[in-house]
Amino acid sequence: MSESEHIDGLWAVIPAGGAGTRLWPMSRRHSPKFLHDLTGSGQSLLRATWSRLEPLVGERMLVVTGAAHEDAVRAQLPMLGRDAVVAEPSPRDSMPAIGLAAAILERRDPEAVLGSFAADHVITDTVGFRRAVEESVVLARRGELVTIGIVPTHPATGFGYIRLGADLGVAGAPTGRRVDEFVEKPDVDTARRYLESGEYRWNAGMFVVGATTLLELLGQEHPEMVTSLRTIASDPRRMRDVWPTITKIAIDHAVAEPAAAAGRVAVVPASIGWDDIGDYASLGTLLGDDAVLAGHPGLRVIGSPSDVVAIDSCGLVATSGRLVALIGVENLVVVDTQDALLITTPARAQEVKQIVQQLTRDGRVELT
Amino acid sequence: MSESEHIDGLWAVIPAGGAGTRLWPMSRRHSPKFLHDLTGSGQSLLRATWSRLEPLVGERMLVVTGAAHEDAVRAQLPMLGRDAVVAEPSPRDSMPAIGLAAAILERRDPEAVLGSFAADHVITDTVGFRRAVEESVVLARRGELVTIGIVPTHPATGFGYIRLGADLGVAGAPTGRRVDEFVEKPDVDTARRYLESGEYRWNAGMFVVGATTLLELLGQEHPEMVTSLRTIASDPRRMRDVWPTITKIAIDHAVAEPAAAAGRVAVVPASIGWDDIGDYASLGTLLGDDAVLAGHPGLRVIGSPSDVVAIDSCGLVATSGRLVALIGVENLVVVDTQDALLITTPARAQEVKQIVQQLTRDGRVELT
Repeated sequence: MSESEHIDGLWAVIPAGGAGTRLWPMSRRHSPKFLHDLTGSGQSLLRATWSRLEPLVGERMLVVTGAAHEDAVRAQLPMLGRDAVVAEPSPRDSMPAIGLAAAILERRDPEAVLGSFAADHVITDTVGFRRAVEESVVLARRGELVTIGIVPTHPATGFGYIRLGADLGVAGAPTGRRVDEFVEKPDVDTARRYLESGEYRWNAGMFVVGATTLLELLGQEHPEMVTSLRTIASDPRRMRDVWPTITKIAIDHAVAEPAAAAGRVAVVPASIGWDDIGDYASLGTLLGDDAVLAGHPGLRVIGSPSDVVAIDSCGLVATSGRLVALIGVENLVVVDTQDALLITTPARAQEVKQIVQQLTRDGRVELT
Repeated sequence: MSESEHIDGLWAVIPAGGAGTRLWPMSRRHSPKFLHDLTGSGQSLLRATWSRLEPLVGERMLVVTGAAHEDAVRAQLPMLGRDAVVAEPSPRDSMPAIGLAAAILERRDPEAVLGSFAADHVITDTVGFRRAVEESVVLARRGELVTIGIVPTHPATGFGYIRLGADLGVAGAPTGRRVDEFVEKPDVDTARRYLESGEYRWNAGMFVVGATTLLELLGQEHPEMVTSLRTIASDPRRMRDVWPTITKIAIDHAVAEPAAAAGRVAVVPASIGWDDIGDYASLGTLLGDDAVLAGHPGLRVIGSPSDVVAIDSCGLVATSGRLVALIGVENLVVVDTQDALLITTPARAQEVKQIVQQLTRDGRVELT
């Protein structure tokens, strides 16, 4: 299969949800991170996700997003047909979103394999990504729930991990392994052990699975959800009354962990420059030399470099048109937006979420 | 003399000039620091200067400012008569400004004693200030050029110093001393020696002197300037053609230093909570407990406290209506204005001037 060919029968599902509160104030409730060009790449994360997937699946794509974001998604992806965007009336976490996509796709193509790839992740190695997806599809066609497991580059505590099991020895999927177990986000010592052992991969939440297989696995623990999802898929007018009754649950808990325990999950390990841009520390490490402010080796700018004037300073600055002047400050994260300014450090970047929570508690939701 | 009585024959001269570039972006070329309420006191520095002087001199006041600021000065001090504000066509430093005031005042009152007090300084002890001015006036009536010398509270390197000479032993001015010498801003070791010796006072640029005495002293080194200033005072229409020919020079160099060398300068030492608010480090130390953000002992806010949300942070934040969120940052100076944001530390606060210089070099004068 060449690099430009579509992968037979593969449908890309793009869950475009999540508030990205740890990336406030760039990411907002009404304008979440997938709609933004966080990395200065010239395209939003959603659009970059489309660009990455189009060579693999052509028009076989389904974006599942919140009703509040449907117009923005369609505006950023005008090449998608009417049926390629599904709007959830309310957020129900990842299982209902991906499950609904599966129920819709099995009606369009009973042999459909879906690959679920979040709208707000970054992958820099598209060749490696295609290779991993191709292997995953081979395994999915054999009835596996397949996850792409990222080879860790550092002892991250912000991701869940996957413990590798036996080689599967399947032709066309030479790197495929059994998943022994999904494990929760570790503390840093545990993360170091995982990294040193070489037996763990990051759980990036990328799943490749037959649409009908996914619903079958879901049905083992949540048969009522499968019924609900198939009801909506067969008659979209039922969305309004059925969707609110569906359990809010992540695909990891609903399907991946129980299926792993039953020995039905495979993993294709991959080193593909993946990141979920969980916070500003993560975003800072993603920015390349292009973002470095001329004459200031340690200072990276998102936005216009002419907005920043600095003396002896380093860190990450996101601008929005106002001048930002820095003197003698080190390793700061500065995010300047029209109505809110954030100043923190990479080490404290996770706590941005608490600012959003406090603003919400204080009734200042217009700022969240 | 009671605390509410005016001091006979004393005229307050208020030089309202200087760009305050080290307080950028609060202070701007077109809106210098004396027009701002930097300390959150509820009145601008200029207005606070008026409030401090009015009990001493009543309506005997003269503000000398740049033509560009005349309207703003009159708007902030509407109680002043038309003749109480003099506009310089171009900046010529402090000697021509105060000298012109002297030339104007000697025509109004040949016995006039003028006290020159900058529009952008802070004095917290008004009782001590009155006492120092009263003693100074006694000495000025004897023909002295009198300066009020501030008792140093720390080894400041940002001020010039005054070396004390012999007690003058003048009735009505018990603390008056001869000035042996004015010395330039010292390095920190020298400043420490000055502080320990007890024989030095800060030169706060506050002079009390007979109007005619000042012109006589000025005439010894700059007779042509005296002629020019008296020409303008007698016919204000000559301002336009004469002012541009006047030498640009500070009163310290033009008069105070030569007069000290000639043994004609007296000093009245005073501890009056004086500060020239030279930079944000200085401003930070001036803000009292009122400015502390509730629940954040080390964090002081200029502007609305509700504009700041913080976790584990300390420093100084000046807001202008946008939300400022701080997480885990220590000892920062953050100044947020409509079109420019400054982030620095107290230790680097002097370098704000360099940012303004760079913006000027880059042709971005609209931001300066």
